[in-house]
Amino acid sequence: MLPIPVKLGARSYDIHTLQQEAALSRTLKKILVGKKAIVLTSPRVHKFCFPVVDRALHQAKIPFQTIQVPDGEEQKNNRTLLKIYEAFLKAKADRSTWVVLLGGGVIGDMGGFAAATYLRGMPFIQIPTTLLAQVDSSIGGKLGLDLEQGKNLVGVIEQPKAVLAYTPFLQTLPKREIVGGLGEVIKYGIIKDPSIFKILMEKKDVLFDIHSAKGVSLMTQLIQASARIKAEVVSKDEMETKGLRHILNFGHTFGHAIEKLTHYSTYLHGEAIGIGMRMAADISVRKGHCSTSIAQTVKDGLKHIGLPTEIPNYPKKDWIQALTVDKKSRDGLIHYVFLQKIGKVVVAPITPEELVNHL
Amino acid sequence: MLPIPVKLGARSYDIHTLQQEAALSRTLKKILVGKKAIVLTSPRVHKFCFPVVDRALHQAKIPFQTIQVPDGEEQKNNRTLLKIYEAFLKAKADRSTWVVLLGGGVIGDMGGFAAATYLRGMPFIQIPTTLLAQVDSSIGGKLGLDLEQGKNLVGVIEQPKAVLAYTPFLQTLPKREIVGGLGEVIKYGIIKDPSIFKILMEKKDVLFDIHSAKGVSLMTQLIQASARIKAEVVSKDEMETKGLRHILNFGHTFGHAIEKLTHYSTYLHGEAIGIGMRMAADISVRKGHCSTSIAQTVKDGLKHIGLPTEIPNYPKKDWIQALTVDKKSRDGLIHYVFLQKIGKVVVAPITPEELVNHL
Repeated sequence: MLPIPVKLGARSYDIHTLQQEAALSRTLKKILVGKKAIVLTSPRVHKFCFPVVDRALHQAKIPFQTIQVPDGEEQKNNRTLLKIYEAFLKAKADRSTWVVLLGGGVIGDMGGFAAATYLRGMPFIQIPTTLLAQVDSSIGGKLGLDLEQGKNLVGVIEQPKAVLAYTPFLQTLPKREIVGGLGEVIKYGIIKDPSIFKILMEKKDVLFDIHSAKGVSLMTQLIQASARIKAEVVSKDEMETKGLRHILNFGHTFGHAIEKLTHYSTYLHGEAIGIGMRMAADISVRKGHCSTSIAQTVKDGLKHIGLPTEIPNYPKKDWIQALTVDKKSRDGLIHYVFLQKIGKVVVAPITPEELVNHL
Repeated sequence: MLPIPVKLGARSYDIHTLQQEAALSRTLKKILVGKKAIVLTSPRVHKFCFPVVDRALHQAKIPFQTIQVPDGEEQKNNRTLLKIYEAFLKAKADRSTWVVLLGGGVIGDMGGFAAATYLRGMPFIQIPTTLLAQVDSSIGGKLGLDLEQGKNLVGVIEQPKAVLAYTPFLQTLPKREIVGGLGEVIKYGIIKDPSIFKILMEKKDVLFDIHSAKGVSLMTQLIQASARIKAEVVSKDEMETKGLRHILNFGHTFGHAIEKLTHYSTYLHGEAIGIGMRMAADISVRKGHCSTSIAQTVKDGLKHIGLPTEIPNYPKKDWIQALTVDKKSRDGLIHYVFLQKIGKVVVAPITPEELVNHL
């Protein structure tokens, strides 16, 4: 399959969606030939996904060392970051060392931040191993970690040199994580590409048969379509300054609030976003942006792929508080993404109070 | 005086060299009008320099809060960084808050890193209060902090929105710090501008009379000339990828090694760089890059302004070890800056071992 370009001048890079181990090996070789590398990964990923990358790097004769750090959202903090820096130091990494980030969103975000800040920046590539990371977090250069006071409060935007989405890695995931990842996939369908939404509605069973060739192939197609949208948006609005990149946050305003209110322990990110999209659909009707039938189509779609849509019960003041520590807020206003129809959304500023009054 | 532009496309900014409080006030107003600000400073700077900025911000009707963190090199670490993030959070800073970095290199580097990484980046301006910061560290966007294992191991390159060098701040400095700062000023003379070197040789007494109008005026002229060189180099090689920015490291390879070997407790940065420049002059003769008389002119010049030039005594293996954890090293080679004549240097790769053999 043709790589998808993220066009950012001198910092442009390609997203490679790969189904064959030979293709992964070939692509890695092309990118890393003549360089030395550090593979940063976690014990879980090391067990399931590392052997493939290990073979590929050996075959491509790339000298490399491996660093393992625990993953999981609770590890995405300053302490783990310092451990990564220490490991870089111990491995005698310098600015010509390429960091290979092999893992899900936590490894990609935090390891990417470590790479982007160690010695003021080492080159890095993303090899995302979860569906969420393959369609979303590995693309676009958002890197960072959590503070005790909130998620992703610290970070930079710094682009990888390449993204390699090897889809057979998804066979190692529990079904719940696949469903969660589809939360971001259906989001792309809703904000930009009705054909993604259609495939999810019509071919769910093939998709969930991820161990079959047909399943992997269809999943790869959806990942490609999703990555293409993200690549286009990032190419046009890398720094989130032109408003365009905001559309990627459809469902995320309340999604993040729900994650916060439930202390990141009840829902997977994609599940929280699922509920957030359901809430966005309802609020869009109330604000006159779309018809009830379009909102219903979205809600049915979310349920169809197995995402939760039940709004958890919290007092208004808790919602408002959870909404106000959002990075997207400026001068107290939230740039909220409203649904217009399947494939089209609109961004408009709104106060947290008004948002919550629409619940 | 005309501002000096750092030309980086959409991220271009001006360096303002200011001698009058009214000009500082006017410039701050122009930059911050309609915005809210956080002034990040240290207790020492707060006492001596803050009142001027306080008046200027009040006059310009800019709403602002003040955060104080301890400065000094030993504070340039992860713990202080976390305190700054906490203070940003407490101040309800968002991406539309402008951070005003009022202080020397530690506040500028670490506070700038905090600003550049909090919420993935807030806008910030530099108001350097030391000579070193006014001619060097506040310009060019190098931000960061130290790890236990080494200085400036963590950081990013992210440009300020403006640099305001208010030269009367220098009247608050002890003479030793002025001399140290002149270490970077004489460096600009040696690498690029013989007229800077000449002024330092001929008008030292006026310069050290910093409380007189003549002294401030001559210092301002030297700061302007220095800032102009740094601005030009940064405009052409922001990310240190084209080799050009390396010339700014004249004297710094051994300077950093000396700081490391003496645990940052014996010499000011500018003093260590002074010794480093002396060593670079000698090594340049030995490698055939310049004549002994040119090297002697440099060494006499360093002594003339009061910088140390005596090489501290360490075994070769200690020098080599101190040289090898340099951010500039790639694949074991150091990009060393050799002297050719006053106003001209050349960068060439060399191993730490060969460097030390030339001592």
